[in-house]
Amino acid sequence: MTNTNIVLSIAGSDPSGGAGIQADLKTFAANGCYGASVITALTAQNTTGVQGVFPCPPNFVEEQINSVLADLDVKAIKTGMLYDAEVMQTVVSSLKKCFAGKPMPHLVVDPVCVSTSGHSLLDLDALAVMISELLPLASVITPNKSEAELLLAQTGTKLSISTLEDMLVAAEKLLSVNCGAVLVKGGHIISSLAEVDAIERKFPKIDVVGECILGEHMEILLRASPNTTGSAIQLVVDVLVQQDGVKAMFVHPRIESTSTHGTGCTLSSAIACELAKGVSLEKAIGIATMYTHLGIQTASPIGKGHGPLNHLHSISSSLVPLRTPENRYPFAKLLIQRTSQSWKGYVQHEFVIQLGKGVLDRNRFAHFIKQDYHYLKYYARAYALLAAKSASFKIIETSTQTILNVLHEIGNHKTFCEKFNISEEELENTPESVATTAYGAFILDTGIQGDVSKLTMALMACLLGYGEVGLWLKKQSEKENSWVVLDGNPYKHWMDEYAGEMYQNAVQLGLETVEAIAQADQPSAAKLKEWIGVWEKCTRLEKGFWDMAMNLSP
Amino acid sequence: MTNTNIVLSIAGSDPSGGAGIQADLKTFAANGCYGASVITALTAQNTTGVQGVFPCPPNFVEEQINSVLADLDVKAIKTGMLYDAEVMQTVVSSLKKCFAGKPMPHLVVDPVCVSTSGHSLLDLDALAVMISELLPLASVITPNKSEAELLLAQTGTKLSISTLEDMLVAAEKLLSVNCGAVLVKGGHIISSLAEVDAIERKFPKIDVVGECILGEHMEILLRASPNTTGSAIQLVVDVLVQQDGVKAMFVHPRIESTSTHGTGCTLSSAIACELAKGVSLEKAIGIATMYTHLGIQTASPIGKGHGPLNHLHSISSSLVPLRTPENRYPFAKLLIQRTSQSWKGYVQHEFVIQLGKGVLDRNRFAHFIKQDYHYLKYYARAYALLAAKSASFKIIETSTQTILNVLHEIGNHKTFCEKFNISEEELENTPESVATTAYGAFILDTGIQGDVSKLTMALMACLLGYGEVGLWLKKQSEKENSWVVLDGNPYKHWMDEYAGEMYQNAVQLGLETVEAIAQADQPSAAKLKEWIGVWEKCTRLEKGFWDMAMNLSP
Repeated sequence: MTNTNIVLSIAGSDPSGGAGIQADLKTFAANGCYGASVITALTAQNTTGVQGVFPCPPNFVEEQINSVLADLDVKAIKTGMLYDAEVMQTVVSSLKKCFAGKPMPHLVVDPVCVSTSGHSLLDLDALAVMISELLPLASVITPNKSEAELLLAQTGTKLSISTLEDMLVAAEKLLSVNCGAVLVKGGHIISSLAEVDAIERKFPKIDVVGECILGEHMEILLRASPNTTGSAIQLVVDVLVQQDGVKAMFVHPRIESTSTHGTGCTLSSAIACELAKGVSLEKAIGIATMYTHLGIQTASPIGKGHGPLNHLHSISSSLVPLRTPENRYPFAKLLIQRTSQSWKGYVQHEFVIQLGKGVLDRNRFAHFIKQDYHYLKYYARAYALLAAKSASFKIIETSTQTILNVLHEIGNHKTFCEKFNISEEELENTPESVATTAYGAFILDTGIQGDVSKLTMALMACLLGYGEVGLWLKKQSEKENSWVVLDGNPYKHWMDEYAGEMYQNAVQLGLETVEAIAQADQPSAAKLKEWIGVWEKCTRLEKGFWDMAMNLSP
Repeated sequence: MTNTNIVLSIAGSDPSGGAGIQADLKTFAANGCYGASVITALTAQNTTGVQGVFPCPPNFVEEQINSVLADLDVKAIKTGMLYDAEVMQTVVSSLKKCFAGKPMPHLVVDPVCVSTSGHSLLDLDALAVMISELLPLASVITPNKSEAELLLAQTGTKLSISTLEDMLVAAEKLLSVNCGAVLVKGGHIISSLAEVDAIERKFPKIDVVGECILGEHMEILLRASPNTTGSAIQLVVDVLVQQDGVKAMFVHPRIESTSTHGTGCTLSSAIACELAKGVSLEKAIGIATMYTHLGIQTASPIGKGHGPLNHLHSISSSLVPLRTPENRYPFAKLLIQRTSQSWKGYVQHEFVIQLGKGVLDRNRFAHFIKQDYHYLKYYARAYALLAAKSASFKIIETSTQTILNVLHEIGNHKTFCEKFNISEEELENTPESVATTAYGAFILDTGIQGDVSKLTMALMACLLGYGEVGLWLKKQSEKENSWVVLDGNPYKHWMDEYAGEMYQNAVQLGLETVEAIAQADQPSAAKLKEWIGVWEKCTRLEKGFWDMAMNLSP
């Protein structure tokens, strides 16, 4: 994730982390937005209740707002608890000043004004400022039942909200405060599918958004969840009405849970995130209600009272670092670092060192080269299998090109072999060693078992390792008093081949390929383990291949 | 991610979101911890500087701490800016009171006392309290160069830190304040690989942790990144010394970046997260320095001055909701919801409806049953391929069991066919229709291209869809005045088969299988798209199969 969509919360602080700006910042992070937060009041609270409140002086609320808005390109703002009339007025005038002559970003107002115990948190002055000054700036306001009732009473409408239809009526009436839209939250009202159906029949143009409900054509899932679905299921429905007349209901199964502290903060913050990303209001609310619903559903109990939601349910760890210009191959680096022992055992094998010194026994090299001849047949076949497994012309092309490169390498082998008096016939007729079969067949088996990515991991140890050997020997040879001998070294041509431009270009292409795989398809922990497992197995099989040469093993 | 490891930050607020408790909460979330935060002071600041500070009264800092610690099982605490002597003393005494008679959780103290412009942020009284009261409680303290110098001066040691060895000396001397360990941060000191090597030679027992550095055996990566690596590279080294004598250096390439606002807050918070998870201090610092390094490296510019890190680099969106008792099949539900048009076109096909009414033309059913006979051969082969692709006995067993189930289904086909006067010979000799070949070969091709997961997606549309058809027809038949006819319906046996216990058990097993795949290997966006693509293609091929039957297509 990157953090380029900036969302600002203006609200109180909950040190226990479940509500207020703490819940807002967690929601912003979990939804891929950059969070800023102006604090209107400190509280001392936890999951069992509020123990104390310490308001921030209005002028310092203004200072905070000015600092943020003078510097950051805020895409959406949400307001939560604004404490009193003076703070509310300050927030309104600060926002108006900062955006004078400019369009105001999306503003989501959670009109916090009634405590869970039913007491009004705001005095009449504050309510009056909210209604006359703040709400008209809002793209959407998100009252719950009690808040909607209080706001309506304040505007002269007495309405007790107890049904879905009441919510719809309340939302429509609340549009009179001149906000862009009203979302009346149904957390305190139990609804049913029958009620939703009835509203749908009565108001045919209303949208019903119910991704969390098991819908039509899901008999197999209904059968598996008899207690949590079906017509008897209790629902939570949030109702949206927009100034343009568009209406929607967001339907979720009610969850019996005590992990609901900060639900309102979370929902309004999640809506602000989607608006900041440029999502339409109705879609934003669909995503945000789903996020909030799953936050309650996946929460573990925290604290002794009403615990917080699980804000982190929608994210997982990224195990491969993001690619940057300074860090071009984070995944290849990770592969090598996580398997450094076996990688080193392979690329700095005694065989390689003796070859660099020019002292490697000719019979050992001949054994190696004859077995490599067999191995390369497997290797070419594996690339053919890669092409066969691929639905992209790009991979079909690079695989085929690699097969041609292998055939070129085979040509070199034959040249070597002539020097070592090994005939082509002998090359073909030498029995395959166990190490050769193990390695070659393992790669092909990996290709049969897995997808293009997994087979690519199996092919890389050979490609990258020989490139490493080539460059390492070359680097050693360039040092003063190097142990690597070039003059008269019978293996110089072999070394040059793997340090050379053509082979190193193939290495470069291989690095790009594995990196692209990991970046396009950020692996889960299980997948990464599987990839590293295949890679490491191949580095061990490579080491075994050179052991086989040193020991002249059959 | 879940949020069960609770970490508490005690620090100031940065409304612009880059430092202070805002950076702490982002770091906690990105590292999979539950964040709580006690605020010691509000600031008005942004990326260009600090415009104002409003301290929280010490008694309200205490109230906040008490609220949090009376309720939450905090696993680690970090402190940042503590404003003045009185607040510092309050924090110390509150913590001591809350943990009287109990072990204190891990405490990471970021001894914020010098501004970036070099001015002391704390008066002498506050420094004295920090040194005598707070630091002795710390598991680790994390001063930068200036802070280490100031703390040392305060304890009577004059030392100007400009080299790696100075840092080591400073860290060792700072242990005299009786904290568990000292991490001197090297962000303001440029080091080199040569210097690191020299320290390593001089102090052979020091650990060098350098996962971000291209190390030995990485010539292929060095070649690809000539400007950012090699011996000339500038390094940032953080030095750790513990009371038990263990020393370590954490080595990273220096990054030229203005996105460094809040680096100290982020690092100490990330250390606290790992300690909360039970990771050892040295490993925790390794993870935390890497997290912070990548946060700088992957940051996009935000604000007009020194911008914040990218705190979200280490997380990705989880696209499949977590499985819970109330939401047993979130992935299967997602598959059906995302492809609802093609799924409905398949499971409520005209063929199914006519079959339920008992009015389906017998020739059409016969055509279907003859083609299904061919299809089931592909289907059995696909399960054999699934077994061949699997490295788990469990999948080998369930695949083989499914093949036996298909052979049982074939038995039923033959019974039907006898009723419809179709001989076994005719069954075998009927030419395969295009729709049959398309569907059967697509599944096998998917198996050749992809891994076990992808092939499973291809196999599910058939298994789950016929289960859905069976249950749907059964449910319809149970309604009053149902359009589904059971008495005298020639296809009743067929319907019973797919609504029956044996088939539905297989459906249940299939649901468990796809769900387990998605939960064990949380798919990336690319992978999810691929899975949904295969599933939807199969639902379309299923519809095509019934179209073929209705049209008697060859």
